[in-house]
Amino acid sequence: MRRVYLDHSATTPIDSRVLDAMLPYLREKFGNASSIHQFGQDARAAVDRARRQIASLINARPNEIVFTSGGTEANNLAIRGICDAAPPGGGHIITSAIEHPSVRGVIEYLEKQGWSVTRLPVHETGVVRVDDVHAALRDNTVLISVMTANNEIGTIQPVSEIGAMVRAARATGRKHLWFHTDAVQAAGRIPLDVDSTGCDLLSLSAHKMYAPKGIGALFIRRGVRLFPQQVGGHQERERRAGTESVANIVAFGTAAELAQTEMQGRHRQIKRLRDRFENEVKTQITDVIRNGDGDCRLSHVSNISFRFIEGEGLLIHLDLQGVAVSTGSACSSGTLEPSPVIIALGRDEELARGAIRFSFGKDNCDDDVDYAVNALKRAVEILRTISPLGRKSLTMPEGSVPSV
Amino acid sequence: MRRVYLDHSATTPIDSRVLDAMLPYLREKFGNASSIHQFGQDARAAVDRARRQIASLINARPNEIVFTSGGTEANNLAIRGICDAAPPGGGHIITSAIEHPSVRGVIEYLEKQGWSVTRLPVHETGVVRVDDVHAALRDNTVLISVMTANNEIGTIQPVSEIGAMVRAARATGRKHLWFHTDAVQAAGRIPLDVDSTGCDLLSLSAHKMYAPKGIGALFIRRGVRLFPQQVGGHQERERRAGTESVANIVAFGTAAELAQTEMQGRHRQIKRLRDRFENEVKTQITDVIRNGDGDCRLSHVSNISFRFIEGEGLLIHLDLQGVAVSTGSACSSGTLEPSPVIIALGRDEELARGAIRFSFGKDNCDDDVDYAVNALKRAVEILRTISPLGRKSLTMPEGSVPSV
Repeated sequence: MRRVYLDHSATTPIDSRVLDAMLPYLREKFGNASSIHQFGQDARAAVDRARRQIASLINARPNEIVFTSGGTEANNLAIRGICDAAPPGGGHIITSAIEHPSVRGVIEYLEKQGWSVTRLPVHETGVVRVDDVHAALRDNTVLISVMTANNEIGTIQPVSEIGAMVRAARATGRKHLWFHTDAVQAAGRIPLDVDSTGCDLLSLSAHKMYAPKGIGALFIRRGVRLFPQQVGGHQERERRAGTESVANIVAFGTAAELAQTEMQGRHRQIKRLRDRFENEVKTQITDVIRNGDGDCRLSHVSNISFRFIEGEGLLIHLDLQGVAVSTGSACSSGTLEPSPVIIALGRDEELARGAIRFSFGKDNCDDDVDYAVNALKRAVEILRTISPLGRKSLTMPEGSVPSV
Repeated sequence: MRRVYLDHSATTPIDSRVLDAMLPYLREKFGNASSIHQFGQDARAAVDRARRQIASLINARPNEIVFTSGGTEANNLAIRGICDAAPPGGGHIITSAIEHPSVRGVIEYLEKQGWSVTRLPVHETGVVRVDDVHAALRDNTVLISVMTANNEIGTIQPVSEIGAMVRAARATGRKHLWFHTDAVQAAGRIPLDVDSTGCDLLSLSAHKMYAPKGIGALFIRRGVRLFPQQVGGHQERERRAGTESVANIVAFGTAAELAQTEMQGRHRQIKRLRDRFENEVKTQITDVIRNGDGDCRLSHVSNISFRFIEGEGLLIHLDLQGVAVSTGSACSSGTLEPSPVIIALGRDEELARGAIRFSFGKDNCDDDVDYAVNALKRAVEILRTISPLGRKSLTMPEGSVPSV
């Protein structure tokens, strides 16, 4: 059976060039980067090179990059690290309603510790309004955390405008206001520049850009004081203790460099496939509704609700035909709740439960699109025939929801 | 130039069988273990298998194993996790003076948060006295954290006796007393059994047992409530969020299984080499003093102080001859302080600064020993000739310090 992987927002296959780069560090170059001897120095040099490659991808300085075990740790370290370093007595956090579970989770934790939180709604296309951020600002706001691009619908957020607002506030004397952005989905897919964005902290994950799972990074702008979360040795300039995951770091660096070099080409190819896919779906399948902004989104993501169908059932039918997709973020698997992201767009529960994320990658081809569309068509037909939801909703008013 | 690696306590080379086992998960089996489709399920099955292999190594149940990014995170999660879950108002922690920086660091953090801490001294051979642990117990003691074997001198601690004491205390109605042991150096080298030890939490690291850096685990006994530190997705039964580092986990599991199967043979071979090394050093080099217990220690570690010499200088001279050793834990590199572990043995600062850790591995051979002893002899001669410490201390009384 043909297998078509359309779940690149969950994780990506490792690029063979990335694997080739990391292999020596899984073989003869096995030193601990903290060791003083030659084995250690070889590892240290490799870690430093990767740090430069990753810094380059986002236009940061190498010593502003701290390696973590992944995007989740980067988000946790950024948010808890900033709030733990803030003047005692708690404060205020601004975030959006559509953040990744690892941002949501750590902010919920801080809320229980006494922090107050404003969760901004999003426009029906999934975009945060800059005016809302501005209006939410309080004297004791310590942190704004808004993602660069959403992981379920791909919507790109106005982070540069938020960054400019934070800079302006700081220019008027505000000392303790920081802007964090989760760029896990955006990195390697759209150009990122921490200087023009004006963010103080930015989270990255390697396995979303054709490198292994278990490695990520946090950009911490020079001068931003952050309380370390994982303590012990002196690694990462005392900002994150623990033996460096050298082979994974080398892979991450290589993947970052490749993403930077090949970004435009990948974008063109992936966008073409994604747009063709959406056109085919719209033409061949009825009662489908695209979630998220049509233009202002990552080129690899297509999130579509299929009326009268449970997303989970559709996912399984597609999987039986070899097509891998997801209903929401992989990190949310295990809940029975409909996606809070789709709900935040103003969709009803039925549409939220019928949402499927298709996410394309650099190695997908036109045949993948054809195969996936056919599989999808078949699965939707079967499921709608047997659906307990029937097609009765057909007569419901559809309101203003855009079709694909 | 020949290269002889004698720093296996810092990190180990990856066993080629371990690399072979993980490679498919760096190639075609790249799924996110939280994904529902087949790519995800293949990853999930591999993670589950590794969990069983690691549980088997320490006689735990698979669902008592939580994967972390390494030993540092495991130690942090255990200690902070237990203390955060304790009744509010702080409490008391008992630990030893010779713990790893990641245990020391997190306990220092808690001390600043208001916890009181008893740091037990060790016998001059580096062993904690069980009577001291007993005497330190208070009504509000929440956690005892004593390592299974020390990372610098290899001394094996009386963890089963401490575990029995904790069990006895719990049998008399104490609800909030937990026993954590850092077994990062011991695992795979001596038999570990969480049931006979009676520990509630036990930390492991893969890269000390011929698997990659960046992966570890924490054993959490069923029923022990622990506050998660890294939050977000539902991974690891809500005890540790973040996409599973599948390839590293597979490697860790394979390494654990190999360590269990081959433990006796490795032990015999390594102990023979280590003992021969110590005999040669004692015969061929004057003014050497072994640190730590002669018998009650891991078979791969030899920690030796060379009088009139700075350990760092000796390390560099050995490195120039291709021999890799260390002065203390790799995690302590970057400090100019003498090893707190050697100081805790009652050694003066000169001896602490002259300490070198030689740590053997399963792939070392007799020629490595011969080469290292010769290199060492040469380096010691050169350094003693030029040493500003001179040999004047030769006339100092040596007290009761045992020679090798």
